[in-house]
Amino acid sequence: MGAKVCLLIFLAFLGVCSASKRSHTPCKRMVLYFHDILFNGKNGGNATSTIVAAPEGGNLTKLAGVYHFGNIVVFDDPITLDTNLHSKPVGRAQGFYIYDTNNTYTSWLGFTFVLDSPHHKGSITFAGADPIMVKARDISIVGGTGDFFMHRGIATVMTDESQGEAYFRLRLDLKFYDCWW
Amino acid sequence: MGAKVCLLIFLAFLGVCSASKRSHTPCKRMVLYFHDILFNGKNGGNATSTIVAAPEGGNLTKLAGVYHFGNIVVFDDPITLDTNLHSKPVGRAQGFYIYDTNNTYTSWLGFTFVLDSPHHKGSITFAGADPIMVKARDISIVGGTGDFFMHRGIATVMTDESQGEAYFRLRLDLKFYDCWW
Amino acid sequence: MGAKVCLLIFLAFLGVCSASKRSHTPCKRMVLYFHDILFNGKNGGNATSTIVAAPEGGNLTKLAGVYHFGNIVVFDDPITLDTNLHSKPVGRAQGFYIYDTNNTYTSWLGFTFVLDSPHHKGSITFAGADPIMVKARDISIVGGTGDFFMHRGIATVMTDESQGEAYFRLRLDLKFYDCWW
Repeated sequence: MGAKVCLLIFLAFLGVCSASKRSHTPCKRMVLYFHDILFNGKNGGNATSTIVAAPEGGNLTKLAGVYHFGNIVVFDDPITLDTNLHSKPVGRAQGFYIYDTNNTYTSWLGFTFVLDSPHHKGSITFAGADPIMVKARDISIVGGTGDFFMHRGIATVMTDESQGEAYFRLRLDLKFYDCWW
Repeated sequence: MGAKVCLLIFLAFLGVCSASKRSHTPCKRMVLYFHDILFNGKNGGNATSTIVAAPEGGNLTKLAGVYHFGNIVVFDDPITLDTNLHSKPVGRAQGFYIYDTNNTYTSWLGFTFVLDSPHHKGSITFAGADPIMVKARDISIVGGTGDFFMHRGIATVMTDESQGEAYFRLRLDLKFYDCWW
Repeated sequence: MGAKVCLLIFLAFLGVCSASKRSHTPCKRMVLYFHDILFNGKNGGNATSTIVAAPEGGNLTKLAGVYHFGNIVVFDDPITLDTNLHSKPVGRAQGFYIYDTNNTYTSWLGFTFVLDSPHHKGSITFAGADPIMVKARDISIVGGTGDFFMHRGIATVMTDESQGEAYFRLRLDLKFYDCWW
């Protein structure tokens, strides 16, 4: 009888353990948007990002010709809870992207969400490839601080809207699978 | 007797748990190669990488003088299962490297393997220092998606071949210690 | 009785498990300093970092005007155990920082501590936002190799000293919460 009870407790624990620690169901989830307005030499007042590196023959106020291959863009973009650029930001998306392919639009991203709102305080850092032409693509969440202490996960990125090279909005569905508890 | 049985189940579980979750033996392992052909102003058709930033006095078609200190190179390199540049690629290595030392050849790498083959679909993101002159050096695998969902590990990098500044091939022995199961 | 004994063993295990694996108390901790001397066109002998990218209108021997927004700096800085720049280094901090905001001083960092001393051999890779004007700010430790095999954690960064744009020293309080054992 003792062994049976034990086994039950045990399986319960095993269940809890797997569920909370190695699940494929997120332990935390949130959808956020960020808005990027690229500096073109004239929109200094509104721009939130700027080209800082270009391949041979490129310049810093216009993305390079061949799928922008070789451009590095540094950004400090507002994060909002909805799709409206003018909604009150809940934080800033800060970092860079690199256009890294010469036969399609693909970029590599390294950036951090610095959240500071009544709901969330802390940072979430992302790194990975972004195959821009794919509708929904996954990028790794490699670390977190504050409310996101030691978190890891995956964000599904969608280009929610883009207006040529002047503006784009990304929708990020953040799924944390490790919430460090 | 019950307690004994329990203890046995328990130890078995403990064994499984430690083995699968905190092992120093990889839960998944693979060897891949990638090939980098640097743009020199004339090889646009073949080049897979391009210099996009250089220190004062440098230019974008030739690596800078002092151990290339300060050059940033963006790449989109084919990944193959064997050493042959012309083998069918199983994916692309996309990201950047920075030459970051002025007294030896050292670089810092941020890049992603985007794999798309019958065997593997998904991404693996790497970040870390690469002391190029060391024969075998380790770099961190900080995240994964798709078949590499939430994976972490370490890749042992070797410069498999290099032809001056025109071409190099890296051999990566990817060892995942966290396969998220 | 068996069940009771079992439960005790079980709770003990649960305690050990949570304590060693999901704790908010570091499993390893160390304080290190690193020293950055920015190349200004004249201090080639001493400089440990160099500007490699700048926004439109910027140059590579002086940080750009508006909070340095858009500058990328590549560094190879000595790491010391105390605050003295001339102490024997225990390793090098290698990577880059980007000034990424146009209304305050904020940067994004990707770098690695390459440690090589009698006490520590291995690498520690960091990524994340650095809100420079905040006294103590947290950045994610996203991977480690060697003595820091598979480690993750958080480093609390303080600007220990800065002399205009010529020199700064950062104090990093490294707290590892995952030591992979």
